[in-house]
Amino acid sequence: MADTQREISVSEFFAKNRHLLGFDNPRKALLTTIKEAVDNSLDACEEAGILPEILVEIDQLEEDRFRVAIEDNGPGIVKAQIPNIFGKLLYGSKFHSRRQSRGQQGIGISAAGLYGQMTCGKGPRIWSKTERGKMHQFEMQMDLTKNKALITKDEEHKDWHRKQGTRFEIDIEATYQRGLRSVDDYIKQTAVSNPHALIRFRAPGMTEEHIYERAVTEVPDLAEEIKPHPYGVELGELMKMLRNTNSRWLSSFLQEEFCRVGPKVAKDIIKAANLGERSYPSRIAREEANNLYRAIQKSKISAPPTTCLSPIGEERITEGLMKECDADFYAVSTRPPSVYRGNPFQIEVGIAWGKPGGDQLEVDEKGRIEKKKKKRTTDTEDLLGNADDTVRILRFANRVPLLFQQAGCGFTKAVMQTSWKNYGLSQSKSSLPIGSAVIFIHMASVWVPFTSEAKEAIAQYPEILKEVKLALQEVGRKLGVHIRRGKKVSSEFQKRSYIEKYLPHVGIGLQEILGLSMEDREEVVEALRDTMETTRKI
Amino acid sequence: MADTQREISVSEFFAKNRHLLGFDNPRKALLTTIKEAVDNSLDACEEAGILPEILVEIDQLEEDRFRVAIEDNGPGIVKAQIPNIFGKLLYGSKFHSRRQSRGQQGIGISAAGLYGQMTCGKGPRIWSKTERGKMHQFEMQMDLTKNKALITKDEEHKDWHRKQGTRFEIDIEATYQRGLRSVDDYIKQTAVSNPHALIRFRAPGMTEEHIYERAVTEVPDLAEEIKPHPYGVELGELMKMLRNTNSRWLSSFLQEEFCRVGPKVAKDIIKAANLGERSYPSRIAREEANNLYRAIQKSKISAPPTTCLSPIGEERITEGLMKECDADFYAVSTRPPSVYRGNPFQIEVGIAWGKPGGDQLEVDEKGRIEKKKKKRTTDTEDLLGNADDTVRILRFANRVPLLFQQAGCGFTKAVMQTSWKNYGLSQSKSSLPIGSAVIFIHMASVWVPFTSEAKEAIAQYPEILKEVKLALQEVGRKLGVHIRRGKKVSSEFQKRSYIEKYLPHVGIGLQEILGLSMEDREEVVEALRDTMETTRKI
Repeated sequence: MADTQREISVSEFFAKNRHLLGFDNPRKALLTTIKEAVDNSLDACEEAGILPEILVEIDQLEEDRFRVAIEDNGPGIVKAQIPNIFGKLLYGSKFHSRRQSRGQQGIGISAAGLYGQMTCGKGPRIWSKTERGKMHQFEMQMDLTKNKALITKDEEHKDWHRKQGTRFEIDIEATYQRGLRSVDDYIKQTAVSNPHALIRFRAPGMTEEHIYERAVTEVPDLAEEIKPHPYGVELGELMKMLRNTNSRWLSSFLQEEFCRVGPKVAKDIIKAANLGERSYPSRIAREEANNLYRAIQKSKISAPPTTCLSPIGEERITEGLMKECDADFYAVSTRPPSVYRGNPFQIEVGIAWGKPGGDQLEVDEKGRIEKKKKKRTTDTEDLLGNADDTVRILRFANRVPLLFQQAGCGFTKAVMQTSWKNYGLSQSKSSLPIGSAVIFIHMASVWVPFTSEAKEAIAQYPEILKEVKLALQEVGRKLGVHIRRGKKVSSEFQKRSYIEKYLPHVGIGLQEILGLSMEDREEVVEALRDTMETTRKI
Repeated sequence: MADTQREISVSEFFAKNRHLLGFDNPRKALLTTIKEAVDNSLDACEEAGILPEILVEIDQLEEDRFRVAIEDNGPGIVKAQIPNIFGKLLYGSKFHSRRQSRGQQGIGISAAGLYGQMTCGKGPRIWSKTERGKMHQFEMQMDLTKNKALITKDEEHKDWHRKQGTRFEIDIEATYQRGLRSVDDYIKQTAVSNPHALIRFRAPGMTEEHIYERAVTEVPDLAEEIKPHPYGVELGELMKMLRNTNSRWLSSFLQEEFCRVGPKVAKDIIKAANLGERSYPSRIAREEANNLYRAIQKSKISAPPTTCLSPIGEERITEGLMKECDADFYAVSTRPPSVYRGNPFQIEVGIAWGKPGGDQLEVDEKGRIEKKKKKRTTDTEDLLGNADDTVRILRFANRVPLLFQQAGCGFTKAVMQTSWKNYGLSQSKSSLPIGSAVIFIHMASVWVPFTSEAKEAIAQYPEILKEVKLALQEVGRKLGVHIRRGKKVSSEFQKRSYIEKYLPHVGIGLQEILGLSMEDREEVVEALRDTMETTRKI
């Protein structure tokens, strides 16, 4: 048995388990390829302080094969890094840094290349130009067994249509379809959550390029990198840090290697752990490290700084929702930052709600009710949905739309666990609420805990669920007020229409009983109407 | 930017993404640790043709820390393999072999060790003895950055209480709770799907060891290893195989490297690809390889052999269901083997159904209805559930129970997409059916496509969904017949009780109208009862 045991390369592993990376089927493979490349492009532009301009092109080669290209105006990539970034799984700068970014695993784009090579036999092609360098065109071949790539072609060109940037191109087995969870859907949602990006999109069947113009012309503030927070470090990690530190003394170790630890906090921790401030970190044994670990957990340490986060902001979310849904009501809530497993994160929730179709009742300044005919485009009705259907959830993590695995996502669970009946929506036990509404949920974090490498859904950490639920309750309460008010208007209108209908009959009755003249009758009816309208004001 | 780019070791990756491996929270971490170790033990025993005897022990060390040990009577492991098997992620013999086994990724047990080391600061301890060797006791320390382990202690012992076997022990941060999806639940289900295994289980709060005796004393037939099937090989893989083959000619390449390709099929493929039978495989360029690939897809090739599969069998499943649920009705269906992405697989489905509580109506041989009081243990009622709740699904892959991620599982989707209304159960649109029933689903395959490394749910490949649905329909039809028959009995009983109730009144009426004597009245009533009972037989 022993002789068949051997190492499995990470490329081999993911090639066989490609559904883990989002390459389950040809349709999803197309989306994943584009998503990974666009994520990288947006990250690269923002890190360099450049307003992103992204081009996405899909060309059909054969019935089941497509050529996909993503091009950006980012800073470009130096030659030495090309085979690693595009041809090695688990390679990158974002994994080890504590800062919000779209990519984090160092898998995505290489996996797209791998999928292309597996299904169409050709590795990825890269064009790249740094500001001062020449444009290089590369062709690569990936070696699965060794998890590395070889550059098979490298041509230098003097001219390129861009001052700087990168173009990634790959042939893949795919299917192109529109509709929900399509590439089109993804690009539209990306434009909503990245209003500073200009996105140009061309796909089979389009007569011309679709351009998503940018709504703002400022690059979002670059999130800062932070040191680990003491609460988020486990015993094993702490022992490793103690072994590897350059700090000479325990006290300086705590202050230098962690955020939010000053001399006072360090002193308290060390005292609680029954250790000396001048202990040598590298000589601390497991039992002492365990005491230190327990002391940290019990100490009062401020929450990590949140400069590492870059939320979208209530204003932008409202704008985005208004652009995409013509609803009757909008509410947005950005929660203060929180922490799970030592990782800072922040939840933003928005809701758009509308009574679809039909008439809309509004109360004017004088308390009069007006009937307004509702104008809705088909497109909008799609997004808000039917009043009899479950609400639609738009999920985002670090500004990236999440289109799949909704059922298994922590966000969905949080929506289900919120009591929407309190806020005027109907809801069966542990289900999504019913109504023509869209719920927008965004998590900004230095590390998003996805349920799979395909980055499709958020793992159900209790701290995250709690924050999402609090944000949902905030927008829910506002929605509840609005819906109740609407119901009051609606029932008021109903009652008033009864008055309109029956008052004349009351008049006739009174006329007969009291023997009134026609004038008297009209007068009485008018007096009654006045009385009722003034006493029944809203 | 370039200088911060670096390689990410697979251990670092999974340490940070531990929820991917099933270590989301302390409760699940305990289950995952035990599951991975038991999987390995069962695989090792079966490969060596040994009837498995597994011991699972849980001891509480501190409030949040537990010591977990799993011991087997397997063939033992030689020293050289110990650090790789238990301390290196992505290492093993099962990944590259096309044969049904529980483990397949070479991650699980090392991940458990890694989790233990991260949370409690100590690596795993191993005791192992091969039949002829001495017993070694090892202690290990894992190196995250390098994804390898160092043996820190190696003691030889002459005596051990076993002739051969392996014991794995690790301290982990955990929570121990009973109930649904607990370790207890997992061990119980494992006993159901592995009736040949003896499992001894000891956990905090137990007065004595719980022993799951074996129901059969035969080791399941060892599944055979097979060569890849041509349909399952993609262009990229084909090109790699052509480069690396030892076969001199294309014709022999096809026959030697694949299953189900004889001289005739090879000839047809080569002809359709417009290539020569004596072409040198290593000289075939991409375009020619593409033609070969397309020709293979179009050729008629028999399905792969299924000696690589080891299903549980209808008889064993029925026994298992009967042992666990005291239902009114059982049905089981084992589908013929099928193929997805070139991987043979086989689906087995069982159903147990019962009207919980209350009286049970049965028709005896003479067509008379009997009322039987139902006897049910509390335990059984739990498994079958309430008549108003959704059915319970027991999911298994290669005999391993799947306890989490039910919502995201292909099996669940298949159950939801089956029209249970046709079979007498109520069901809302795309939901699980309602009723006190248990549905058992097992997939046996050389490669189970899990939705995550934690191996909790089956990816939704259409071929798999189709087979599960067909099997569900088979048992569903049988259930439908049973339920309709039961309904007939029930409504018959209802009608008959009306007869009992009203016949005397009819008699009194007739007596008054016709002036009958008491004897005549009784006679008429009796005659009427006889007539109605004979004409209304079931």
